[in-house]
Amino acid sequence: MNALEKLKAHYTLLNNFEHLQAITGWDQATMMPSGGAHARSEAMSALALHIHTLSSEPKLLDWIDEAETKTLCLEERVFLREARRNYLNANKLPKRLVEAKAKAGAKCEHAWRTQKAENDWHGFLKNFETVVALSQEEAQIRSDNHATPYDALMDLYEPGMTSSIVDGVFNDVESWLPSLIEQVIDKQQAEFEQVTLNGNNYPISAQETLGKALMAMFGFDFERGRLDVSAHPFCGGVSDDTRITTRYDEANFIPAMMGVIHETGHARYEQMLPKALNPYPVGKARSMGVHESQSLFFEMQIARDAAFIPHLFNQVQRYLGAALPSGFALKHFSQSIQKVERGYIRVDADEVTYPAHVILRYQIEKALINKEIKAADIPELWDSKMRSYLGLSTAGNYREGCMQDIHWTDGSFGYFPSYTLGAMYAAQFRAAMEKSFSVASSLEKLELNKIQDWLNEHVWSQGCTLETVELIEQATGSGLDVIHFKRHLETRYL
Amino acid sequence: MNALEKLKAHYTLLNNFEHLQAITGWDQATMMPSGGAHARSEAMSALALHIHTLSSEPKLLDWIDEAETKTLCLEERVFLREARRNYLNANKLPKRLVEAKAKAGAKCEHAWRTQKAENDWHGFLKNFETVVALSQEEAQIRSDNHATPYDALMDLYEPGMTSSIVDGVFNDVESWLPSLIEQVIDKQQAEFEQVTLNGNNYPISAQETLGKALMAMFGFDFERGRLDVSAHPFCGGVSDDTRITTRYDEANFIPAMMGVIHETGHARYEQMLPKALNPYPVGKARSMGVHESQSLFFEMQIARDAAFIPHLFNQVQRYLGAALPSGFALKHFSQSIQKVERGYIRVDADEVTYPAHVILRYQIEKALINKEIKAADIPELWDSKMRSYLGLSTAGNYREGCMQDIHWTDGSFGYFPSYTLGAMYAAQFRAAMEKSFSVASSLEKLELNKIQDWLNEHVWSQGCTLETVELIEQATGSGLDVIHFKRHLETRYL
Repeated sequence: MNALEKLKAHYTLLNNFEHLQAITGWDQATMMPSGGAHARSEAMSALALHIHTLSSEPKLLDWIDEAETKTLCLEERVFLREARRNYLNANKLPKRLVEAKAKAGAKCEHAWRTQKAENDWHGFLKNFETVVALSQEEAQIRSDNHATPYDALMDLYEPGMTSSIVDGVFNDVESWLPSLIEQVIDKQQAEFEQVTLNGNNYPISAQETLGKALMAMFGFDFERGRLDVSAHPFCGGVSDDTRITTRYDEANFIPAMMGVIHETGHARYEQMLPKALNPYPVGKARSMGVHESQSLFFEMQIARDAAFIPHLFNQVQRYLGAALPSGFALKHFSQSIQKVERGYIRVDADEVTYPAHVILRYQIEKALINKEIKAADIPELWDSKMRSYLGLSTAGNYREGCMQDIHWTDGSFGYFPSYTLGAMYAAQFRAAMEKSFSVASSLEKLELNKIQDWLNEHVWSQGCTLETVELIEQATGSGLDVIHFKRHLETRYL
Repeated sequence: MNALEKLKAHYTLLNNFEHLQAITGWDQATMMPSGGAHARSEAMSALALHIHTLSSEPKLLDWIDEAETKTLCLEERVFLREARRNYLNANKLPKRLVEAKAKAGAKCEHAWRTQKAENDWHGFLKNFETVVALSQEEAQIRSDNHATPYDALMDLYEPGMTSSIVDGVFNDVESWLPSLIEQVIDKQQAEFEQVTLNGNNYPISAQETLGKALMAMFGFDFERGRLDVSAHPFCGGVSDDTRITTRYDEANFIPAMMGVIHETGHARYEQMLPKALNPYPVGKARSMGVHESQSLFFEMQIARDAAFIPHLFNQVQRYLGAALPSGFALKHFSQSIQKVERGYIRVDADEVTYPAHVILRYQIEKALINKEIKAADIPELWDSKMRSYLGLSTAGNYREGCMQDIHWTDGSFGYFPSYTLGAMYAAQFRAAMEKSFSVASSLEKLELNKIQDWLNEHVWSQGCTLETVELIEQATGSGLDVIHFKRHLETRYL
């Protein structure tokens, strides 16, 4: 076997263990009884260590170097580029730091679950300072090719993205978002009727049937995937067995319904990754931001679009019609799913206020990792930014302020920007799509295939063969441009 | 770390990968969509190879040898005895043979699924001859400490059991079973009323609720386990997360109900294995025969006992009462679950005719592995033994004859005796239990704890600390004695 063949065999093996990790992780969140938690956690730690060992064997770098001495076709070059990235990411940190991070993260996250409920910032801070210090150390070690330590962490989730680019687009958003939010809310207060969905009984089995019908409409391949329930919805599993989850509220069917559509966007991306390349690093999804662009395309660009909402309402009437409030018409449904409100909680936010939550977190975590602020400074900064972006104060209210998210508790700094980058990519994809055909008219005619064919050609089938920047440029004709997202929000909400 | 500590650390690691195997195997049978099969099979093969590598590292034998030079307490001695057994079983075969067996077994089993439906013995025979040849080679290689090659294979499932012992007990059974079957059938024909359960609609959700109620009654710990559905019922998972399955027939609730009780017997054994020892070979279930003795104790010694049947019927009436045929009384229920019939299919057989199916298979597979017959001779032998034991001919009827079971298709020769050894152990346990207290009176009073405490003390909590022979002797005061099984059948059915 030559070096390239050896690499393929090795990554096929690694992929098999990642498969086991995906399935047992899914099981842990959906099926496992509580008494199984300790043994599962031990087994999954052993597996994670094995995967880390397989990802970081020094012979991989030798093979990559050796393969690169040969004349290579494009496909081989990108294979090796992604293999090298995978190897370097896995090898950068000393074992001591990996273990210390895992331990401190687990301890902080575990304690956070009760500290959050008790609004106990000072208790949390003690553990969190250790997590921050270790992440700062990680960022320092990873920072060699990056402008700032924070850039190195963001690169793990959004390869190629820099804080200079993100600062540019987020500063732009910051300049117009607060006033846009105000205008939208004023408009909706003037135009929207007061209708509440809550309090009615939407049976879980009917919500599940509705969810599956929508998944089928959105092309989900049920021969290669499932829908189940978990406390925190996610898309897991593997390309040929993609598993999404949701959670149901009997008083309101909209969160589960929109959640299922959102996860179906993630799932279609996974199910349609290039089959021949899928075992290798080059055959995986491009980045967290690109992944989020697909889920948000499904949820925001399709499902909440005025041209699609009537189809969605048809399905709701079909499966939940008997439970809807009397007189609840298309207009009320449409207003329910396009409602914009200022709130404390990111995961409950609509697409207009969501970027404010993300920009706030991005600015704080960047300053924290670059050692411009201390962990203890966070609550005050949080309160000041919340007041500035959303007019809400979180002074003394940590549980709905800086303690609301799980991300920081285990040191996942650099992840938050992906959410809003995803929303921007999605809007930019739609604008590009419009050059080929009218998306609104496809939505009206329920020609979702046409839209998905475009996404498949430009995103899904690409895996990691393109860098994110290349992917955006080839798909849309330009680099990331926030104008598409701004226009999308203005068109829909003003 | 001394050698013993190194062994404990290593077996803890091995146990973690076996955990992943148990859960992904369960998922494959219960949750996985069909399109995920290929990727899963690849991932599980990689895991099996990794487990085999971990089980057979030469340093293990060094550590075992080194540990045995020290002064050891009893617990350390049995730890090392089981570690050595585990190591030697994993190391006996050359890699070439392991791989050839896996490949031939997979091919034969896969083709069998269609060949069986098509009654295609000659097509099957071509693949099967390769499987047999490889198993004969395996038996030869493993046979050094065994009287015959077949003994070496049986020892994998029932350590310490020999064909000389099994011949003794099976010849005994063969001498009285056909006439017992005849008497029982005559008696039931004279006494039983014709009542059919079939054709009524027993909703699956109600059957599931009944099954869970019975599991709870039989002590199943739902914090550490689950009940699900699979095509072939089994007990899987791990001690702290034991997963049993069943399959439902809306026309007849009895098979699923009795199946759940049977698997609950397996599950209680797994859930109650000694916690501190469970990661090591010495902390696993003793053998297939002992495992089957627990499932059959629950199903045959408890659930089909005249003293327990009224309690069972109460539960049936509670959860399925509305679906029962009108006039269906305790008497009819009791007759339904104690009915004895001659049939072609082992898995459908009652406890009286079941041993005939097993003895027939044992005699044939023993002769096959010891090279006294050829694979091509099987159909004729099968037909002749079926006629002799059960008065049924399978001439030309392969699908209900020698092609009915999956066991031989992948070379699992030596497994079949475990079923009937389990039934005999169960009867012998009950006879021993009767020396301490009246089991019938405990069943009448629904004091299942008393029975389970005895099983826990003598079987469950022992793990592999005792050899099977020791376990039977310490629990019952004597070695395997078929008289208890014979008396059990005569008492219940004559």
